[in-house]
Amino acid sequence: MLGNIENPGGVEPVSRPVYFLSDSTGITAETLGNTLLTQFPQSTFDRTTIPFITSVEQAQAVVSTVDAVAARGVLPIVFSTVVGGDIRLTLATCRATVVDLIGTHIWQLEGALGAAASGKPGQAHGLGNAARYQSRMTAVEYAMEHDDGQSLRALEKAQIILVAPSRCGKTPTTMYLALQHGIFAANFPLVEEDFEREGLPEPLKPFAEKCFGLTSTPQRLSQIRTGRRRDSAYASLRQCSYELRSAELMYLTHGIPYLNSSSVSVEEMAATILQRMRLKH
Amino acid sequence: MLGNIENPGGVEPVSRPVYFLSDSTGITAETLGNTLLTQFPQSTFDRTTIPFITSVEQAQAVVSTVDAVAARGVLPIVFSTVVGGDIRLTLATCRATVVDLIGTHIWQLEGALGAAASGKPGQAHGLGNAARYQSRMTAVEYAMEHDDGQSLRALEKAQIILVAPSRCGKTPTTMYLALQHGIFAANFPLVEEDFEREGLPEPLKPFAEKCFGLTSTPQRLSQIRTGRRRDSAYASLRQCSYELRSAELMYLTHGIPYLNSSSVSVEEMAATILQRMRLKH
Repeated sequence: MLGNIENPGGVEPVSRPVYFLSDSTGITAETLGNTLLTQFPQSTFDRTTIPFITSVEQAQAVVSTVDAVAARGVLPIVFSTVVGGDIRLTLATCRATVVDLIGTHIWQLEGALGAAASGKPGQAHGLGNAARYQSRMTAVEYAMEHDDGQSLRALEKAQIILVAPSRCGKTPTTMYLALQHGIFAANFPLVEEDFEREGLPEPLKPFAEKCFGLTSTPQRLSQIRTGRRRDSAYASLRQCSYELRSAELMYLTHGIPYLNSSSVSVEEMAATILQRMRLKH
Repeated sequence: MLGNIENPGGVEPVSRPVYFLSDSTGITAETLGNTLLTQFPQSTFDRTTIPFITSVEQAQAVVSTVDAVAARGVLPIVFSTVVGGDIRLTLATCRATVVDLIGTHIWQLEGALGAAASGKPGQAHGLGNAARYQSRMTAVEYAMEHDDGQSLRALEKAQIILVAPSRCGKTPTTMYLALQHGIFAANFPLVEEDFEREGLPEPLKPFAEKCFGLTSTPQRLSQIRTGRRRDSAYASLRQCSYELRSAELMYLTHGIPYLNSSSVSVEEMAATILQRMRLKH
């Protein structure tokens, strides 16, 4: 009767239906909605995103969908970032807890800025500032071309060079910095011969102040490498330990800031790197 | 005196200082804050993100920074996603318009779920669900390996294959789907010889139902290609027009859904693709 111990009321735990509704991509609704939901770790949620709700007719269809789910007995939670008045009023009629992420805050900003909100659908994830968008796309291209030390040309263009032994998280972090923040990020893999020589690897020497190191724990690194090449020397705890120790020594010797990636996400690494390298994004 | 026409009050327009404050990465504060700010296109903003505010002492230092800026004459706007009560109370004392993105909504969810919020710093962008995080990282790796038709092995593992002529936006869209949504996305470049043959390109034939096409306008495509190879046949309006027309014909003939990428962002493309391909993320 473990179920009853965990759930003393005796009611079968059910996933709460959650809807993220948007007149645009739904990214903002998902982001704040999920942040709020992490405050309730005891509950489980069944999430659906409905983007591009741009007419009252579409909103009415969404209300029907949500109401049909509510009729099954569990009141859904709705997070909405819809801006337009008519569509918002329609969605507000849902049989659900409707959390209006825009309407709640907009009056406060209208007061602060002394201006009325435009009322147009969110453009935060559209092309918006075309120059900024283009620079993000160029940064992705740059990151692809400079992944894993593939091309050492144009390192002078990099705003940051991530340095680490293989499988410490360089590539996804580089990609995240480029795609989300438009940062020109290159990365450079440290290999055994880099540790045998004195000093920084030759291609990095002119750019020491742009370098940021990643490290990990031997256990975590060995686990990840084993997923790639089981029972290899490459994945052995001994090899991982040697490479990480040598890399950390290199970072310390050359004043390169670094971060242990073993228990943080790419988002956390990117935020830390932007802050510590004082990169404006 | 154009300045005075645009700004009848005669006051020099100044950028409004905006702070995104967080006990975690700051991503959620930036995302909703920026969405709200796009409602005020007449104003300009000078944005600063301060992540990882996890103690009252740090919060006090932030308050001093914001107050010093306020003392220069323009009241800043502060968007906060800090969860912890003490830190929130400290930040609320800023000389600024403080928009509390968590506190405002949490009571509504506490009511709906019949439970108290945990009060722990946001984990939405941390490792959180380790399996889900790992699958996103694996998806990034997969996307890197299958970019631009590099490796046609393992296409059966793809949840989606983006198909398009060169420079229509396949790579950043693939990367976004992988990094944000953990979707296994491959991409396949259409080249001239693909248009000269009947049917789908050979490697795609078994996977037609996973294909999603991108197209563009000849003008936009030519402009992007010119940035890569000026005055080339590859970048000519005539060549771009031919490739796009042929690609669209291929999509239509084989019932491949497609999207014109010329005036939408990768975020919008990803949201549209997830919706139309009914990919659960």
